[in-house]
Amino acid sequence: MTQPRILAFDIFGTVVDWHGSIVQEVQALYPQVDANAFALAWRAGYQPAMQRVRSGELGWTRIDELHRLILDELLPRFGLAHLAEADRVHLNRVWHRLNAWPDVVAGLQRLKTRHTITSLSNGNIGLLTNMAKRAGLPWDCILSAEVFRAYKPDAATYLGVAQVFDVSPSEVMLCAAHHDDLAAARACGLQTAYIERPLEFGAQHIKDVSPQPGNDLHARDMGHLAELLGC
Amino acid sequence: MTQPRILAFDIFGTVVDWHGSIVQEVQALYPQVDANAFALAWRAGYQPAMQRVRSGELGWTRIDELHRLILDELLPRFGLAHLAEADRVHLNRVWHRLNAWPDVVAGLQRLKTRHTITSLSNGNIGLLTNMAKRAGLPWDCILSAEVFRAYKPDAATYLGVAQVFDVSPSEVMLCAAHHDDLAAARACGLQTAYIERPLEFGAQHIKDVSPQPGNDLHARDMGHLAELLGC
Repeated sequence: MTQPRILAFDIFGTVVDWHGSIVQEVQALYPQVDANAFALAWRAGYQPAMQRVRSGELGWTRIDELHRLILDELLPRFGLAHLAEADRVHLNRVWHRLNAWPDVVAGLQRLKTRHTITSLSNGNIGLLTNMAKRAGLPWDCILSAEVFRAYKPDAATYLGVAQVFDVSPSEVMLCAAHHDDLAAARACGLQTAYIERPLEFGAQHIKDVSPQPGNDLHARDMGHLAELLGC
Repeated sequence: MTQPRILAFDIFGTVVDWHGSIVQEVQALYPQVDANAFALAWRAGYQPAMQRVRSGELGWTRIDELHRLILDELLPRFGLAHLAEADRVHLNRVWHRLNAWPDVVAGLQRLKTRHTITSLSNGNIGLLTNMAKRAGLPWDCILSAEVFRAYKPDAATYLGVAQVFDVSPSEVMLCAAHHDDLAAARACGLQTAYIERPLEFGAQHIKDVSPQPGNDLHARDMGHLAELLGC
């Protein structure tokens, strides 16, 4: 295995705990709502919303706007149709306020001593920057679908990382908690590392994190990834 | 004056000492060359090269490639026509290895406690990331002409910063050592801070850094800028 020069990280679920963070905020703001169901429903709207962009039905639209479209559809189903515009704006920005998994900051600090670490997320640049500033994520660079104007798993995103850093695809390693993301990166020639996040969908829906063939590395968390890469 | 939320920094000359860094490397590598003249000539090719992109004569071309085009024209004039490809590649990457002015790292650390700090440079993302990693520049975000596919002073770059962070142009402050860059930002509604860099072109060509009307702030260096912004 050649050491990758660039480590590109998926964000939602891999680096930050979207489910736990949204549950926490919704419970605090709207205690009458089933926060677990609300978080799951919001996230479930994510792929279909991006598909409307990928298919060309919508022009280029950032995740902030897609999250808002989904939210507006969701609120009546959870008895929150009355929410004022300012409350909707605030709630939608919860995606900028997601908490990192506890192992992330220390793990990234170790990894960045020997690698260039960047996000590669479908989240927009402003969202990723606000999130990183709040959570202390020490990125060397913030790359987003917004830079490439294409959503993962479009090859333009994975190959775009290699082009930005003027390296071959095999010198980039995608680190993600999702096998479909990793498979698409692998098809572009990137190395891949799977990160276990059994609690991504909450304690009521434990995710299967068994190893699948094809990934170069399989790590329990970011500290373990640093260990596997000799950092 | 409203406090700006986002501080966007010009890089070449404002944050890093391109002249001194290139002189140092060229002197070490090719002692027979007039390193001061070499550095000035390389930089003098920069605006005309970008103009070829702005005018449409060249399609979108990154600064790394533009620097290389200029370099290849320059080498014979300085008796370096014999340089092999690997040496040209290495020399061209000097722009990734520029040193920060001595006040920069501490100043940016102060500024980032109360503001989001981002680059806004015509340099490409990979160049800016490598530079930041080497020089310890603590950016919250790396924005580049490469993100907007337009070179400063195109309005798309200045307005692009506001759009990325979903703020009004007046909530962004461009910080730069060049009055033309600041004037173009001001025309887009941004706030502006001039940073004195009398040695940008070397000690033999002291730059006039007198205040000009129109800028919101005029700072001796990054520490002074932090002081002016109450950080």
